[in-house]
Amino acid sequence: MNDKLLHTPDGVRDIYGSECKKKLKIIDKIHHVLELYSYQDIETPCFEYFNIFNMDKGSAPSNEMYKFFDRNNNTLVLRPDLTPSVARCVAKYYADEELPIRLCYKGNTFNNAPLHQGKLNECTQIGGELINDDSSAADAEAIACVISCLVATGLEEFQIEIGEIEYFKGLIEEAGLDLETENKIREYIQLKNFFGLSEFISGLAISDAMKLAFNSFENLFGGLDMLERARGLVSNNRSIEAIDRITKVYNALKSYGYEKYVGFDLGMLNRYNYYTGIVFRGYTYGTGDAIVKGGRYNNLLSQFGKDAASVGFAIYVDELMMAISRNKINVEVDYSNILVLYDIEYQGNAIKLTTSLRSKGKKIELIRKSTKHAVEDYVEYARKMHLSGVYHFTSPLDIDVISVIDNAKETIKLGDIM
Amino acid sequence: MNDKLLHTPDGVRDIYGSECKKKLKIIDKIHHVLELYSYQDIETPCFEYFNIFNMDKGSAPSNEMYKFFDRNNNTLVLRPDLTPSVARCVAKYYADEELPIRLCYKGNTFNNAPLHQGKLNECTQIGGELINDDSSAADAEAIACVISCLVATGLEEFQIEIGEIEYFKGLIEEAGLDLETENKIREYIQLKNFFGLSEFISGLAISDAMKLAFNSFENLFGGLDMLERARGLVSNNRSIEAIDRITKVYNALKSYGYEKYVGFDLGMLNRYNYYTGIVFRGYTYGTGDAIVKGGRYNNLLSQFGKDAASVGFAIYVDELMMAISRNKINVEVDYSNILVLYDIEYQGNAIKLTTSLRSKGKKIELIRKSTKHAVEDYVEYARKMHLSGVYHFTSPLDIDVISVIDNAKETIKLGDIM
Repeated sequence: MNDKLLHTPDGVRDIYGSECKKKLKIIDKIHHVLELYSYQDIETPCFEYFNIFNMDKGSAPSNEMYKFFDRNNNTLVLRPDLTPSVARCVAKYYADEELPIRLCYKGNTFNNAPLHQGKLNECTQIGGELINDDSSAADAEAIACVISCLVATGLEEFQIEIGEIEYFKGLIEEAGLDLETENKIREYIQLKNFFGLSEFISGLAISDAMKLAFNSFENLFGGLDMLERARGLVSNNRSIEAIDRITKVYNALKSYGYEKYVGFDLGMLNRYNYYTGIVFRGYTYGTGDAIVKGGRYNNLLSQFGKDAASVGFAIYVDELMMAISRNKINVEVDYSNILVLYDIEYQGNAIKLTTSLRSKGKKIELIRKSTKHAVEDYVEYARKMHLSGVYHFTSPLDIDVISVIDNAKETIKLGDIM
Repeated sequence: MNDKLLHTPDGVRDIYGSECKKKLKIIDKIHHVLELYSYQDIETPCFEYFNIFNMDKGSAPSNEMYKFFDRNNNTLVLRPDLTPSVARCVAKYYADEELPIRLCYKGNTFNNAPLHQGKLNECTQIGGELINDDSSAADAEAIACVISCLVATGLEEFQIEIGEIEYFKGLIEEAGLDLETENKIREYIQLKNFFGLSEFISGLAISDAMKLAFNSFENLFGGLDMLERARGLVSNNRSIEAIDRITKVYNALKSYGYEKYVGFDLGMLNRYNYYTGIVFRGYTYGTGDAIVKGGRYNNLLSQFGKDAASVGFAIYVDELMMAISRNKINVEVDYSNILVLYDIEYQGNAIKLTTSLRSKGKKIELIRKSTKHAVEDYVEYARKMHLSGVYHFTSPLDIDVISVIDNAKETIKLGDIM
């Protein structure tokens, strides 16, 4: 027996039992919220041509994608992300639509990164994209939708951190820095290496006010007061408009009653991304990684031939499930299934009872008793499998109803429950 | 603009709009039936080590799988089939369980075959596996579940063809033929090349009774009378037990009230398969391909180290959707969404109304009116997108309710609907 035959490849796994039940339940709840927000379902293939995710279109570096070839030797990749696929669809199927389009998806994404810290290489994402709407209202609606989704899962303590990368870009512009220097600064901020940042900044030929502004990224997170502080650090319009934008988004979120879930972080700057305006991430206890990522991407669709401003988000279901489990949040799943057990000679009536119960919406596990096992074995099995009870036919018309709690037995007549 | 950027790879496609809505609805209905039959959800990775599907474990030949490598140079394949993955899981997670296990899955399968006749290379399957139960009752329960699933989709005219490959194997044994000859005969029967079969059989050194039996495969399909005819052609126990088995399955299906959906076909012999007993396929009008495939596979799990008899089935969702569409079966989908349209100054109240309506389960598309578009544009959009109506704020407390049918307008007060 080759033991490897039982194994899944590195970084991917099986999900079964109550974990799988709960995952599907949580996805259902989130999907229902997306429906309430009027998102329309879309499904795209698990793999695409490589160039769909190439360069600035994707969220993953090329060497972290699973690649293979089709029969014409074109390079295919397992999608690392769904946003570029949805962008492709919108450019293709909604080429002339100018009014807002809301699309949502549920799908797995794939990431062939070196293994570390138990990160998964196949993840389930459920997300939405709101296309053709450049307003701060659309930003707020996307974030409100995310908050409604998380609330629907039962999660209570979570925070959506909102950034605005235009603030940083305005600052770079005001200081007149080149792309190389920009990337260097961005990296220091991303890694939260503020000693390194300070040393690097001190060597630049920029004004003291600019140096102060860059060094301030160490503290550019928090509430409304931070936004005002950030506004005071800059004098360029681009950065100031970013602060105005984020403030408008916040005010709209207050109308949703969701301000308590929101914080700001102007140092949220992704390396691989297509984001152009607000960016946001959701965090909670129980997982160090974001359970939600999103933001505005106004330039992505033009790469597929349609000029359309967009904002979107993805909920990282695996991270969310981990948080839900560690926070001991109850995900109610149905354990009402009944085992109907019969000997061969009562098959006809057992099937008829089962069909009748199922037609009333009852979940029935129908088993013909094997001569190798005693009734007690089946009761023990029912207990282990979280079934709610056992109906055992002892004659064509008599049924022992056996409790999985204490094996207590009560005899009922077939006619009484059919 | 590289036009290829808009394309999906060969054989895979996007699904959106009402087609996607309907697909998800149909999957939901089928999944609900699987729950009534007490199947438990399981999810396995989209790709596995190659040897999971190798040789007699898989349903696809090696050169029709998408293959790639992990970072340790192991060969991975996109799953062509889910049954071997589920078998692997049962051997791993339910190694000591002797009583019946029912697992169901919904997932995509991948088939890198040369393109022909618009066949899809990525297909959605939803299926179930009933493990640790060798009884004819289990065979019948699996087929009954398939029938219940198809009935739930609204399909009325379909047929489940049931075969039993032990009948053929018993015949081969009785005639004393070797594997090469067996495969040759199997291929003729599969391809329904009965002229070729007859010629080939005439050259074999077997009795006339045996020749007659093999040549009879041309007509070994139909109802109960065919089974009796088939029984008369053989004198070996293996074939006779196969007929007995299929008869028992039929009798159990009568208790389900499902005999009208059932026919028999003893010539149903798959080339690439793990089936050992009954096999079945579902057909309907509107697609030439099977919408369901299934059967008993008593030897598959032992290849993963667990000796467990099993029967299972997969519903081919894409084929099923095509049949449903061509048969003009109504799949009711919800088009009750309402567009709430507002100008920036009424944002607060528009959000409050929307939140209130969503909390009552209403699906609301909230849009801040762009100055580039007139209200009429949004009404036209609502019509095109199958929304049920437009609520347009004309003051903080006044809302025009606009009909998407005839643009008729009625003004209501915010207080009346909040």
